[in-house]
Amino acid sequence: MRGLFITIEGAEGSGKSTQIDLLKTYLDKNKYEIVLTREPGGTNISEAIRNILLDKQYMEMSDTTEALLYAASRAQHVEQFIKPALEQGKIVICDRFLDSSLIYQGCARGLGIETIEEINKYATKGLEPDITILLDIEPKQGLKRKEDQKELDRIELQKSEFHEKVCNGFKELAKKHPHRIKKIDASKSIEDIHNEIISIVSDKISTQH
Amino acid sequence: MRGLFITIEGAEGSGKSTQIDLLKTYLDKNKYEIVLTREPGGTNISEAIRNILLDKQYMEMSDTTEALLYAASRAQHVEQFIKPALEQGKIVICDRFLDSSLIYQGCARGLGIETIEEINKYATKGLEPDITILLDIEPKQGLKRKEDQKELDRIELQKSEFHEKVCNGFKELAKKHPHRIKKIDASKSIEDIHNEIISIVSDKISTQH
Repeated sequence: MRGLFITIEGAEGSGKSTQIDLLKTYLDKNKYEIVLTREPGGTNISEAIRNILLDKQYMEMSDTTEALLYAASRAQHVEQFIKPALEQGKIVICDRFLDSSLIYQGCARGLGIETIEEINKYATKGLEPDITILLDIEPKQGLKRKEDQKELDRIELQKSEFHEKVCNGFKELAKKHPHRIKKIDASKSIEDIHNEIISIVSDKISTQH
Repeated sequence: MRGLFITIEGAEGSGKSTQIDLLKTYLDKNKYEIVLTREPGGTNISEAIRNILLDKQYMEMSDTTEALLYAASRAQHVEQFIKPALEQGKIVICDRFLDSSLIYQGCARGLGIETIEEINKYATKGLEPDITILLDIEPKQGLKRKEDQKELDRIELQKSEFHEKVCNGFKELAKKHPHRIKKIDASKSIEDIHNEIISIVSDKISTQH
């Protein structure tokens, strides 16, 4: 008996939070036992690491430091939170996971996907999402949404070129893993996107159980 | 023109701080341009990571998280502080470096030396100390000294078995790298140890310049 591990990925402003809330409401209504979590974060230690990662006072952070901090945060999250919840048969919905590191640090920072995979094999100990929902958005549109919402953090403050690499990286990654990563056009209406997500998740639940 | 990279290693209570102060005074008097630093730490970002690593509220930290955090802290330290100082021809004296990770996380935590080397190859980008002074102490004696001095941090609070593995690990490592690692009996008098260190460092300076 193992739960279901769903990750939601996408660039800045792709609407992940909104869709995660809607998915949670839907699954709650249907009596599934679910837990929501996020990366970087999800445990006390991982949240403390998150504070360093997103703090604007640390703009001098080296790309390698950033990659290792994301991996450190993930290691604690997987061991202390995600794996135990899956072993209890729960549905774990995680806002970002390894794919974000592959794209942000591997592609956009240019460290290379292989490097990030190698560092993270210690962090995930082989854990992979059962499904990944990728909210696919154009970089300018996504950033515009974020700027309207709140003050930007250290990652959101990167140049627009960085965000373009992120959006393109995600598209490429989805092509490589078509069975796991389901790409959805994030410029559609909130309701349309929600319905697509429900359909993908329901299919997966029905084939698993 | 490249400076000299000296690291000081040893288990808890081996007297590193005392000897580093004495070595600094000696080198200052002899007009060398030196900088002191420490791991984990040495830059703002690395010190923020240090605070997480040593905080007693985080006793649940996984061994892999710990190893990745030490590496993240080191990556920033090497890139932002140590390499630039060496390029300016300075003598860098660092309280702990990669050897501590090999021994604490690789041996004492049991992750294996190869794992720690692999994670850290991204952090050090191949930088190795020119000389490493290992202050060799018996585990019980070292811990006793620490307990008399101050409140213990998360690492110092590990079981005595952990500290034994640390002391033995350092001895083994010194055997593997006899040219770089110089082992000194830390039960000798402060003055005797200081004189041995001066002799080792002076030899190295005279062969380098």
